Amino acid sequence: MIKAGILGATGYAGAELARLLSAHPFAEIEILTSAHNAGAAYGDIYENFRHTGRVCEADDIEEAARRCDVVFISLPHGIASKRVTADILAKTRIIDLGADFRLKDIGVYEKWYGVEHFGAGLIAEAVYGLSEIHRADIRGARLIANPGCFTTAGILALYPLVKDRIIDIDTIIIDAKSGVSGAGRGLKPELLFCEADETVKPYGVTTHRHTPEIEEQLTLAYNNQDGGARSRAGDRSIILNFIPHLVPMNRGILSTCYAMPAEKGVTYEDVRAVYAKYYADEYFIRLTKKGVFPETRWTKGGNFIDIGFTVDERTNRVVIAAALDNLVKGAAGQAVQNMNIMFGLNERAGLETPPAFPI
Amino acid sequence: MIKAGILGATGYAGAELARLLSAHPFAEIEILTSAHNAGAAYGDIYENFRHTGRVCEADDIEEAARRCDVVFISLPHGIASKRVTADILAKTRIIDLGADFRLKDIGVYEKWYGVEHFGAGLIAEAVYGLSEIHRADIRGARLIANPGCFTTAGILALYPLVKDRIIDIDTIIIDAKSGVSGAGRGLKPELLFCEADETVKPYGVTTHRHTPEIEEQLTLAYNNQDGGARSRAGDRSIILNFIPHLVPMNRGILSTCYAMPAEKGVTYEDVRAVYAKYYADEYFIRLTKKGVFPETRWTKGGNFIDIGFTVDERTNRVVIAAALDNLVKGAAGQAVQNMNIMFGLNERAGLETPPAFPI
Amino acid sequence: MIKAGILGATGYAGAELARLLSAHPFAEIEILTSAHNAGAAYGDIYENFRHTGRVCEADDIEEAARRCDVVFISLPHGIASKRVTADILAKTRIIDLGADFRLKDIGVYEKWYGVEHFGAGLIAEAVYGLSEIHRADIRGARLIANPGCFTTAGILALYPLVKDRIIDIDTIIIDAKSGVSGAGRGLKPELLFCEADETVKPYGVTTHRHTPEIEEQLTLAYNNQDGGARSRAGDRSIILNFIPHLVPMNRGILSTCYAMPAEKGVTYEDVRAVYAKYYADEYFIRLTKKGVFPETRWTKGGNFIDIGFTVDERTNRVVIAAALDNLVKGAAGQAVQNMNIMFGLNERAGLETPPAFPI
Amino acid sequence: MIKAGILGATGYAGAELARLLSAHPFAEIEILTSAHNAGAAYGDIYENFRHTGRVCEADDIEEAARRCDVVFISLPHGIASKRVTADILAKTRIIDLGADFRLKDIGVYEKWYGVEHFGAGLIAEAVYGLSEIHRADIRGARLIANPGCFTTAGILALYPLVKDRIIDIDTIIIDAKSGVSGAGRGLKPELLFCEADETVKPYGVTTHRHTPEIEEQLTLAYNNQDGGARSRAGDRSIILNFIPHLVPMNRGILSTCYAMPAEKGVTYEDVRAVYAKYYADEYFIRLTKKGVFPETRWTKGGNFIDIGFTVDERTNRVVIAAALDNLVKGAAGQAVQNMNIMFGLNERAGLETPPAFPI
Repeated sequence: MIKAGILGATGYAGAELARLLSAHPFAEIEILTSAHNAGAAYGDIYENFRHTGRVCEADDIEEAARRCDVVFISLPHGIASKRVTADILAKTRIIDLGADFRLKDIGVYEKWYGVEHFGAGLIAEAVYGLSEIHRADIRGARLIANPGCFTTAGILALYPLVKDRIIDIDTIIIDAKSGVSGAGRGLKPELLFCEADETVKPYGVTTHRHTPEIEEQLTLAYNNQDGGARSRAGDRSIILNFIPHLVPMNRGILSTCYAMPAEKGVTYEDVRAVYAKYYADEYFIRLTKKGVFPETRWTKGGNFIDIGFTVDERTNRVVIAAALDNLVKGAAGQAVQNMNIMFGLNERAGLETPPAFPI
Repeated sequence: MIKAGILGATGYAGAELARLLSAHPFAEIEILTSAHNAGAAYGDIYENFRHTGRVCEADDIEEAARRCDVVFISLPHGIASKRVTADILAKTRIIDLGADFRLKDIGVYEKWYGVEHFGAGLIAEAVYGLSEIHRADIRGARLIANPGCFTTAGILALYPLVKDRIIDIDTIIIDAKSGVSGAGRGLKPELLFCEADETVKPYGVTTHRHTPEIEEQLTLAYNNQDGGARSRAGDRSIILNFIPHLVPMNRGILSTCYAMPAEKGVTYEDVRAVYAKYYADEYFIRLTKKGVFPETRWTKGGNFIDIGFTVDERTNRVVIAAALDNLVKGAAGQAVQNMNIMFGLNERAGLETPPAFPI
Repeated sequence: MIKAGILGATGYAGAELARLLSAHPFAEIEILTSAHNAGAAYGDIYENFRHTGRVCEADDIEEAARRCDVVFISLPHGIASKRVTADILAKTRIIDLGADFRLKDIGVYEKWYGVEHFGAGLIAEAVYGLSEIHRADIRGARLIANPGCFTTAGILALYPLVKDRIIDIDTIIIDAKSGVSGAGRGLKPELLFCEADETVKPYGVTTHRHTPEIEEQLTLAYNNQDGGARSRAGDRSIILNFIPHLVPMNRGILSTCYAMPAEKGVTYEDVRAVYAKYYADEYFIRLTKKGVFPETRWTKGGNFIDIGFTVDERTNRVVIAAALDNLVKGAAGQAVQNMNIMFGLNERAGLETPPAFPI
Repeated sequence: MIKAGILGATGYAGAELARLLSAHPFAEIEILTSAHNAGAAYGDIYENFRHTGRVCEADDIEEAARRCDVVFISLPHGIASKRVTADILAKTRIIDLGADFRLKDIGVYEKWYGVEHFGAGLIAEAVYGLSEIHRADIRGARLIANPGCFTTAGILALYPLVKDRIIDIDTIIIDAKSGVSGAGRGLKPELLFCEADETVKPYGVTTHRHTPEIEEQLTLAYNNQDGGARSRAGDRSIILNFIPHLVPMNRGILSTCYAMPAEKGVTYEDVRAVYAKYYADEYFIRLTKKGVFPETRWTKGGNFIDIGFTVDERTNRVVIAAALDNLVKGAAGQAVQNMNIMFGLNERAGLETPPAFPI
């Protein structure tokens, strides 16, 4: 059995990871940590784990690296870049669910996150952990930067169209709708039930930190036709609008993407063919039938992303909708999928249970 | 007191009208009708009216016209165009909450609604009942076509920008999010609680019937700089994407609108000035403070539409969000506002109670 | 116009009061206060009041008493008993929405609330503001102790049955279900959306502070057949189980009450007659039809309490359900009703709008 | 691999069964049937199964019996009692999720369900499938009557207390709160989102069909101290109040149970000891810590029932709360647990994933 550690197991993503690993056939949880609740029964914090008898340990990456084959980090941004070192990577593999190693351009990171990055030396080594796109690199990686929830939806929805240059990259708009768990478990007034129930609102309008992550990955896809994951001088940059909205539900992201075709006359079948080219063999990417659009409910608890689209001749626009569970394919499930790839397991191991409905 | 009738009082919009009129200082309900529940106590259908002792009468427009100063029609499309006649208009004023008299172009109506229009002769007379835009015409009107819920949000969000040609009309996208009451009270599987709770989905993608209504009104605004409400040869047509989404909440519409500025260098202040030009004196239109975006919760039960926006220099796009209560400003409240104008009352009469929160 | 002040206008009950008073035909808001937001625009805190231009003032009861005919206090318990003095009562009337003056037995107050009571001298004068039961005393009162939300539901559901001694007072159980707004706007982890959505839980099991309030009022009703509001030596005490539950909705309380009949053979009609005896002329108390039970949705935004019941011959139990809006009949609406009585107004003034549905 | 069939896979319980069996290590789905959708892709009905490629077959129990080692029946009551015959039981094992074989007293069945029972000959053989109580009988059974959702919560909450006669059986009240999925997927107006959202209501007051099921099982427990599952002359009958309420959430049941101790002086520890006596080794029954009460959210998607309680000295009552997922421990999970027992598997097989939160 692979021994796994979870640093930051008391956040929602960390807890979802604990849930998925609890039933994984080839991995087991060796250590769960909590910065504020070391020593506490995990079942006192998350009663759904009451039966496990697990206890939170201190947030010690050295200890975790010593005891584990793989350590998942689910901590606020700015911490992993300090704690993950060459020394740690010599002892264990790291899958970081935070933002610290996602952006290749450190200047972009520091600008959007407003903090200094302390792990510059490892950025080059870090592999962006979107399994379907970077599978080959993930296989041999020691350090995975697990993608953000919105970015997973946005990139996977648009990747084939950008890669094959079938859409005009200057016209991309992503209007995303997210459940509240995406905002985390912090005590913020706007996250109170009575403030978030029965309402919809935009937030982080034009300033959300997942924007540069989507842009960087799509830019790489557009320019590196050979599949490389590094930018080059002269690359054409993709700049887009990403506007998230908060929806009164626990989980789920729906990203509605708008773009104009790169040239006139693109048909539904053309676009479908491009999706098929890249995703036909991808188990966790499900294309809806023509005329059917994704709904977040069909993905809850599962590691799938559902994608549907139309080509509107009237307005000459492609409209794509992508749905996923932000805590699974958008975080913990994606992380387990990456672990499976890194350790040469069946990529679906521990992720076989279909999404639950209604739940 | 103005005597008011409601044809179709057992739908959600009809019931909301009954609620608002119940507390109106200058109007009273003379007749409530129901196609399927004539003779039933209204309080047996809507227990919130239990105390009123009202009884539903048959859906008879002749009877309603005879007894009422104004008749509100809240029936499925295709019915009002048959029942409203010159004879009826000679007896009473009509405010139709349905779609039959909203579109000036009968061909567009028949194409999008898929039914024949039987009241062609009255279309020219009908006034599109968006009070803030057509107030002068509403004053003397006998027949009001009360706007659709999505269209109210879309048009009011974009009207000043289109009218003053500050945005590029070929780049407009409206991504709307709606509560479930917008879909009505019909027994459809997808409207069951367990099918609509905890999920978001797009629907009517590129085919929703409110699309041509928004397009026609914005096209008129763009072309008729003199404020006229009729199209002319040579008019430039506005074609846009309108994609609604269903959100797990009872009420509320949030429309997020995207467009590029007509020319470079448009600033937040420029856009704000255009809104102020048209809306500064409009009680029911509230502009949010800079940096604040509307949320549907602040409008529930009230007749306001809240509008906020930003100008994103990075992508050169204007992003506007507008929020309203689909059953009030998007239906019954707008209808009462129109009644107030038609009868020379204070436009706010019966609409003074602020939105409720949390509710 | 009656000049009204609201101390603590930034809590949910205070804001609901502001909403109701905004449309009251005979009262107007003179002052809104906030302990933490003095000087802030009220519309910045509650955007639903954006259009009003109101500004929060400091929490100064002297100032409020000087400028207002009536001051509503909506502050945490323990504060009103310090601030309300004989001097204040000489200047204005007080309607306290908090708990400080509700219990006649100061020892019970101090035991259940765990704090010292500083206004003992005024307890005797304070009138328990359940309009339907203490109307006569409210009329001439200077100080009203507005009832708690759960207590209003529990007392009004059981009052006639206890008063007429038709149920066995040793067998009363109240199982209550409440929306989340009842817990207030404080930043508590268990009130976060993701912690309260899609779940039900009991809380304050056998320890909720509304318990003694219900017990005291029902005990008075049982013993004082003459309607007096003071206990006497030898009174039979009512002790009951009150167990509240948190339900994922913004508003509403449903109290399901269980009791055995005082003697065998009590019928539905017997119980109905007792309700009719006390409530037949009460506008705000609506009895459901036989076989129909109340639902909180029919009361949202309105000042009604709906009561329905059955007599189960199989188990020899009376089961009563009562529904109300915790922020209206359970707080702000009840307070306005009391104000109306105190000032000799029509008791329904400002409370005429029917509950809204769906909302 | 055990070959399993699901008759009625398009209801919510059937679909949950399909979900759980999809990831079962020792069982696989051989056939899914649908009365109305034979031939349809299962993924067209439940998009969460889109990736499976499964197709619904006709509702043919003969065919299912021929091909399967075990057939789960998830059909409306009245059907299984006709289709399950001695002949069928000679070919396969049956786990019926419906009500037809739950009640031993056929007269009680016909009275509460209002239909004739056609399978009287098999009632004696049928084993009531509450694993924790009837495990020994389940082991060798051919026909399992899987318990109802409310009954599972009610019986497991009260069984030890009734069995050990620590509570007064004439004082039992069960006030239950259920998510909407318990009402099934039928097109009923009261199940529409806008009718069920943001409200609580009692239903089936004193008439719900799970009442006699709870009563029969508790009566057997009380009288048969030897553990037998048959009633005898002279047995003392338990009659109780069971009042369910509908809560705006997809899943979950919380049953709050009230009873007086059989004699004075019963303590928390006494009651805890009785629970421990029967449940100490039960994996799927979790007792909460003292002072903590169950919440449905901790059980979602898992097969656990959480039980917490208090002994209220003030009122001399025991208050017990039990929470479970109505579609798992209340239906499909319980059925899988029974299958595991019948086939000699680890009872937890396929049920190891902890409940998900927040979801």
